[in-house]
Amino acid sequence: MPLDQSEKEEIAASRSQKFQTARPTVQALEQILYEAIPVLDHGFVRVVDYMGDDSSIVQAARVSYGRGTRRLSDDRNLIGYLLRHAHTTPFEMAEIKLHVKLPIFVARQWIRHRTANVNEYSARYSVLDKEFYLPASEQLAAQSPDNRQGRGSVVGLPESARVLELLKHDAETAYAHYLEMLNVDESGDKLDEDRSGIARELARMNLSLNFYTQWYWKCDLHNFMNFLRLRADPHAQFEIRIYAEKLLDVLKIWCPLAYDAFIEYRLHARLLSKSALSVLQKALRQEPVSLETSGLTKREWNELTSIFPIEQDKR
Amino acid sequence: MPLDQSEKEEIAASRSQKFQTARPTVQALEQILYEAIPVLDHGFVRVVDYMGDDSSIVQAARVSYGRGTRRLSDDRNLIGYLLRHAHTTPFEMAEIKLHVKLPIFVARQWIRHRTANVNEYSARYSVLDKEFYLPASEQLAAQSPDNRQGRGSVVGLPESARVLELLKHDAETAYAHYLEMLNVDESGDKLDEDRSGIARELARMNLSLNFYTQWYWKCDLHNFMNFLRLRADPHAQFEIRIYAEKLLDVLKIWCPLAYDAFIEYRLHARLLSKSALSVLQKALRQEPVSLETSGLTKREWNELTSIFPIEQDKR
Amino acid sequence: MPLDQSEKEEIAASRSQKFQTARPTVQALEQILYEAIPVLDHGFVRVVDYMGDDSSIVQAARVSYGRGTRRLSDDRNLIGYLLRHAHTTPFEMAEIKLHVKLPIFVARQWIRHRTANVNEYSARYSVLDKEFYLPASEQLAAQSPDNRQGRGSVVGLPESARVLELLKHDAETAYAHYLEMLNVDESGDKLDEDRSGIARELARMNLSLNFYTQWYWKCDLHNFMNFLRLRADPHAQFEIRIYAEKLLDVLKIWCPLAYDAFIEYRLHARLLSKSALSVLQKALRQEPVSLETSGLTKREWNELTSIFPIEQDKR
Amino acid sequence: MPLDQSEKEEIAASRSQKFQTARPTVQALEQILYEAIPVLDHGFVRVVDYMGDDSSIVQAARVSYGRGTRRLSDDRNLIGYLLRHAHTTPFEMAEIKLHVKLPIFVARQWIRHRTANVNEYSARYSVLDKEFYLPASEQLAAQSPDNRQGRGSVVGLPESARVLELLKHDAETAYAHYLEMLNVDESGDKLDEDRSGIARELARMNLSLNFYTQWYWKCDLHNFMNFLRLRADPHAQFEIRIYAEKLLDVLKIWCPLAYDAFIEYRLHARLLSKSALSVLQKALRQEPVSLETSGLTKREWNELTSIFPIEQDKR
Repeated sequence: MPLDQSEKEEIAASRSQKFQTARPTVQALEQILYEAIPVLDHGFVRVVDYMGDDSSIVQAARVSYGRGTRRLSDDRNLIGYLLRHAHTTPFEMAEIKLHVKLPIFVARQWIRHRTANVNEYSARYSVLDKEFYLPASEQLAAQSPDNRQGRGSVVGLPESARVLELLKHDAETAYAHYLEMLNVDESGDKLDEDRSGIARELARMNLSLNFYTQWYWKCDLHNFMNFLRLRADPHAQFEIRIYAEKLLDVLKIWCPLAYDAFIEYRLHARLLSKSALSVLQKALRQEPVSLETSGLTKREWNELTSIFPIEQDKR
Repeated sequence: MPLDQSEKEEIAASRSQKFQTARPTVQALEQILYEAIPVLDHGFVRVVDYMGDDSSIVQAARVSYGRGTRRLSDDRNLIGYLLRHAHTTPFEMAEIKLHVKLPIFVARQWIRHRTANVNEYSARYSVLDKEFYLPASEQLAAQSPDNRQGRGSVVGLPESARVLELLKHDAETAYAHYLEMLNVDESGDKLDEDRSGIARELARMNLSLNFYTQWYWKCDLHNFMNFLRLRADPHAQFEIRIYAEKLLDVLKIWCPLAYDAFIEYRLHARLLSKSALSVLQKALRQEPVSLETSGLTKREWNELTSIFPIEQDKR
Repeated sequence: MPLDQSEKEEIAASRSQKFQTARPTVQALEQILYEAIPVLDHGFVRVVDYMGDDSSIVQAARVSYGRGTRRLSDDRNLIGYLLRHAHTTPFEMAEIKLHVKLPIFVARQWIRHRTANVNEYSARYSVLDKEFYLPASEQLAAQSPDNRQGRGSVVGLPESARVLELLKHDAETAYAHYLEMLNVDESGDKLDEDRSGIARELARMNLSLNFYTQWYWKCDLHNFMNFLRLRADPHAQFEIRIYAEKLLDVLKIWCPLAYDAFIEYRLHARLLSKSALSVLQKALRQEPVSLETSGLTKREWNELTSIFPIEQDKR
Repeated sequence: MPLDQSEKEEIAASRSQKFQTARPTVQALEQILYEAIPVLDHGFVRVVDYMGDDSSIVQAARVSYGRGTRRLSDDRNLIGYLLRHAHTTPFEMAEIKLHVKLPIFVARQWIRHRTANVNEYSARYSVLDKEFYLPASEQLAAQSPDNRQGRGSVVGLPESARVLELLKHDAETAYAHYLEMLNVDESGDKLDEDRSGIARELARMNLSLNFYTQWYWKCDLHNFMNFLRLRADPHAQFEIRIYAEKLLDVLKIWCPLAYDAFIEYRLHARLLSKSALSVLQKALRQEPVSLETSGLTKREWNELTSIFPIEQDKR
């Protein structure tokens, strides 16, 4: 249950606000504004503000490229053209602000995207809530045998049950000791009049990386798409990818034309190396191709032939 | 006359838009949204979009500092506190987008503020208009005798008239030759059927730095205040300072509490060096102080004594 | 013991390298290059590379300000002048690269400095070592009664002993379970042939925030000084401040003139608000001053009068 | 002639410096350190400092990916792998500093790369030299008929002669009037005792965009490669591309393995859209493909078929 009663009331109050504005406004996004979209067991993302829409991209491009853009009379074509040619500055003209609740180990990956504005809940100023992430058992997978950073097949039942028991037990113990060190109970009252407790900035170090934190995170559309490209990718860790997938849905509502261009020219596009291009050219000319003559590594060759129906010359 | 008829109509159309939104909205800023605020002889600034207001700063701070901010129940106090203690991330949670028309030499200073998003009119794609900056004669000042980067007293009449004549003549000649090289007239029609003209990206190099360019410029409030602090400063060149002053007015309308804090803790605040602090402490204790014993340079001493009524020990 | 045998050998090998270069070189910094400077119980900082020195700042300034800098013939004066007037771009022309080992909760503060380059040890790729931070007992302080983010007085013996016991016990348990979930022992061998273990990216979430991580961190001198100003400040948490203090020592060795200017114009300087300046002016003119008429908050008044010997008017 | 006598002497002095260092050092780059590589008629690039080399990329990657990188025992393979998978942070661990002399209109494009450190010659502080760019006549091309931003075929002789005459005449006039407004002659002596002259910050606005400026520019390798990818591209304007090409040569000397990876995975690689991938898959399976069924625009289709031997289904 990611939200308590007072948070729900605050969201309802924000959602019922009605202001008149001459700014670009996306009615479909207004429908979900402030709403908590659940992610993982206790997390959420909320769109709390936005600036601009598809038309803002077009407007900025028309300033830059002036009369040059008149021939691309269609907004859809123009936005596709911009992304295809990496004319990315017009995408910086739209901005989104999110409120995100997420496990600390996910936050540690997320923060690496430096071109964003962040205000995180500070455990120096406040006591963290007793909320920690426990993976669903179908997420408990073994180390991938061929991917140094990823997961392979899901582990069997006795093992997954044991893992969940350990994670739960250790998080609960850590939290109980966190409160004990602070000398407060769960409602914040002092536990023991004879002890002073230690400072919040110290006690927090006992909490594990699956505890939840939260932040306001603001980013322009260009960098938002960079985030999505890296984090909605199958190589991203599941626990951040699931956030990115929810944000992909948000992008589709907010800027549908930019979303389509993003899918076409980024998320489902592929960068082909000089050598890979050469292999494809030969294959299309029906010339023999092989790993040995391709200049590709074994791994690259496998990747290329998994995408394209290329037959290796066996002679 | 910074705007032509079609631009005026576009602005009027934008201004008459009425959307309903649940986003934070500043009615006073809506009043001037899209409007061209004139600057210099042909320039302007227009606020074309914004995200957030004073309450967005407060909201972000309350997430970060949690229960710690409850005692600062008053928004004004909280915003002042944040700026005073350089807790600047909450100010990054508001954003503003401007359309600016400005001389190229001003644009060259402005662009040095790197943490902004920019889409500039491209003279590779379009022909520049015949608009160049001519200073008002009261701006035609001599090199300052004691400030390596600034202006001193205004030059006399025959000299200023000659300067304006030169600036006007050279800009007009440059522009006429620009069109000739492009082989077009002012309405864009071909001049001479037998010539091809040279590419826009080449011809533009003949234009001087007082020609006007324009851009969309987007920036968060923290970096906007950094811009204002440096560019609304008396040491900034007049031609950019006058833009900064108009933007100060915009800030006052947009985020009045942040504006007050900015004046108090930034624009009219002073950074006193370790040695300067020591001089002030002594002076307040009525102990003798002097340039020689202060550890200050002559220039620093003069600056300090121009702010504070400190008498040098003459013994 | 922050370093194992193979790391020590690698450091010794790096230190014994001798290349000839025409680049600016700081012999005093070469003396400590690659060396591990111990911080906290298992942490360190190592300078692993640098670009430029005090003369690089001067060189860049002379390009920018050209003949204007000739009068400031002295490098010391020029560097002081630059910092005093916030002409900070010349300081960006020097760069330093560090290898840092630090507790995760410290890393989470450190990473907020966005204008740096970072490569962190990834617990998706590798198993973390069994190294966690335990505060020295003189660091175990209570929450400060008047500072929402800081520490007050040190807690007494039975309490501090209990805290250390809890921290140690929980970290050891978490690590043991981390290995159990990975199904490896401390030397990396498989524990149980019948289990697959779970992926590293999952198991790591059981570790607490006092475990050590490490990274390469590279930053220009301007942003390095920003880091030092915020993190060597008494309000910074002790566990990051102690790193900043070691880095202050590094700065002194690397760029002694910039270091002196930094102390004078940043670390021991004070930003005085508009109202504070006014109070000081009055006090120096022996006019009556008081909290009520000052425009300062109680907190600001207290801070000002703690620095300056100002007597409040009691009439 | 880009360098005067005193500059040549300064360069010779720098080049003859010999320091001993334990930092990573590239002997091939030391050979050209400080040397002015001529570009255009009066411009140059000089490498004035650098940090790191290919081994610095590898070192940072091994910290991040730990044991995960051991299998990629070969540095060349590892660097290729990193670039291919957009693991770009290790490339941020190397840094280069240049001294560049370039026409102002080129500087205006260059400065758009925001993640760099810059110190530019300031015409507020110093008088600019009489140096302006005149294109070689084989560079005087007409606007491209199908590329809104580029050049087409070279213009004929009488026209190019006229263009060069105009450019030369206007730049000389502008410079003569610049000095007249400053009231100085070319050696800096006062022209007319009865006039004060106007401030440098004002007079400079009369100069045209082909005048040369200069700056120190510092950048990490990741962003340096981004710069090269965009500016060594055939769509970049010739006058900046020629700088990028010289810098490509520098990269090859500095980090030969990164250079090879850059050519393979960036400069000569291609991003293929989702629809383009689908066309290629069909063509390789010998299924019919056509513009109409491809989902590509006419322009995209033409581009794809110019790279790959794809025959359109004519049925």
